Amino acid sequence: MKLLGGIEAGGTKFVCMVGSDPGNVRKEEQFPTTTPRETIDRATEFFLPYVQSGELAAIGIASFGPLDLNPGSPTYGYITTTPKPGWSQIDLYGEIQGNLHVPVAFDTDVNAAAFGEQYWLPENRSLDPFIYMTVGTGIGVGVIVNGSPLHGLVHAEAGHFALPHDWHRDPFPGACPYHGDCLEGLASGFSMSSRWGQSPESLPAIHPGWDLEYDYIALALVNLIYAYSPRRIVLGGGVAQHPGLHQAVRCKVRQYLKGYVQSSMLMDKIDEYILPPALGNRSGGLGAIAMADCKQLE
Amino acid sequence: MKLLGGIEAGGTKFVCMVGSDPGNVRKEEQFPTTTPRETIDRATEFFLPYVQSGELAAIGIASFGPLDLNPGSPTYGYITTTPKPGWSQIDLYGEIQGNLHVPVAFDTDVNAAAFGEQYWLPENRSLDPFIYMTVGTGIGVGVIVNGSPLHGLVHAEAGHFALPHDWHRDPFPGACPYHGDCLEGLASGFSMSSRWGQSPESLPAIHPGWDLEYDYIALALVNLIYAYSPRRIVLGGGVAQHPGLHQAVRCKVRQYLKGYVQSSMLMDKIDEYILPPALGNRSGGLGAIAMADCKQLE
Repeated sequence: MKLLGGIEAGGTKFVCMVGSDPGNVRKEEQFPTTTPRETIDRATEFFLPYVQSGELAAIGIASFGPLDLNPGSPTYGYITTTPKPGWSQIDLYGEIQGNLHVPVAFDTDVNAAAFGEQYWLPENRSLDPFIYMTVGTGIGVGVIVNGSPLHGLVHAEAGHFALPHDWHRDPFPGACPYHGDCLEGLASGFSMSSRWGQSPESLPAIHPGWDLEYDYIALALVNLIYAYSPRRIVLGGGVAQHPGLHQAVRCKVRQYLKGYVQSSMLMDKIDEYILPPALGNRSGGLGAIAMADCKQLE
Repeated sequence: MKLLGGIEAGGTKFVCMVGSDPGNVRKEEQFPTTTPRETIDRATEFFLPYVQSGELAAIGIASFGPLDLNPGSPTYGYITTTPKPGWSQIDLYGEIQGNLHVPVAFDTDVNAAAFGEQYWLPENRSLDPFIYMTVGTGIGVGVIVNGSPLHGLVHAEAGHFALPHDWHRDPFPGACPYHGDCLEGLASGFSMSSRWGQSPESLPAIHPGWDLEYDYIALALVNLIYAYSPRRIVLGGGVAQHPGLHQAVRCKVRQYLKGYVQSSMLMDKIDEYILPPALGNRSGGLGAIAMADCKQLE
């Protein structure tokens, strides 16, 4: 049996996996994201034995961005303008392919997570469009339309949506280095830490910061519903693991929609509409393996 | 040569066309949207001679909404919950097909307009995703991904985006009957008339209401850019015909993006990125004919 590789290339850590599907991951390793040279070398070493044995059919890369995903571009496969020191204009796709000489699929971490959640879960296969939103240190959105990740000029950047900001209730100016009080600037884990002086993990369940957080996430989801009319939304990431978050957000989404979108999924079955990731915190890596699975069939 | 029919079914008027393409419209008629019975009968009469002569191959309907576009639904082709008196739960698709017995394509007015602008303009064919936003009495957004209008639970409703609302600058509470100060509630022609006590057509060019309007439209476009990463945005509708609006909006879109999306289209060529409709105010009707053209080939 042929094996597939998956790399979840995050700003904090890289996760590498080899396997064939979520039930058969042969080896998994994670290590901190240091310099591009060191980190890419370490990923290469992880996969090299499987390449040498002839078992590895393809690799998928699920990367932090922004990325150049335009196949006609001379910088296809590059991480473009990240604030992460040393990682701007890094040819992640080209380096991995050059080192390992197998077909490589390449997309954003969130597109890969969306793809994985749809690809590996039979009940999600027919749900189109399909959305994955992560709320962690940052906020990102992946979108699958007709079975393929949405690409255009670049890729979705809905983590930076402009949203209502009630300055009386929330005088925090926002923490996005580009936009200040965009969605990510108001509701990412980083912005919560900046606003409250403590991390989301340590913020007590009764702290009013949570109700504010639920409101921003719900407003973001409402805009995603208006934009794509998705058939399912998977809401993942570290902040979204806070107990009760999904239930509270579902309730607020319904409040904000005000009955405008006539669909029983929103009216009666929102518990089946906005869900935590079925693949847990492995959506990105297993999504990368799903992308590799498609790549080897090309 | 086979002929195609197009119906632009608006809340104020219906426009019916028969032809083969934008350069060959044989007959065109418009009449006010009164009762469903009377209006649908009038559309039927318009097309009947072409059906009886055997010339009409198919009809496209570009309708005001919200619509049921789910082919598996018992109410497929219905206008669902419109506030327009008498038009809720009207089977527009079924009535037209039942009366005329030709294949009928059915979509929202804005999806049809987006489809028409892409279908009939060779230079737009490869621009994917492709967006049409109308700012008129109301606000609507049509989206083409991979050559097809985007459908999901329902269809895009991005006219109701939640957006930043600076209450100091703009104390108007918004005019959307559902959401108050959503995009449509703040920036539609109806909301401008409500806020200023005069219609957009009569609002002087130096009135500060225009600068406010440009800001809301630009924020909406920024959210559309973050959501879809479209390769082109067509901005149409009566309000968008205000002289200088496109130029002012382009400038504000760039300001709000803050250089975040790395694309030469946004950085250097935004004049080719946000454009008025090439088909003028006939995008909807000619889009309906484009839909009919595809339908007859099915």
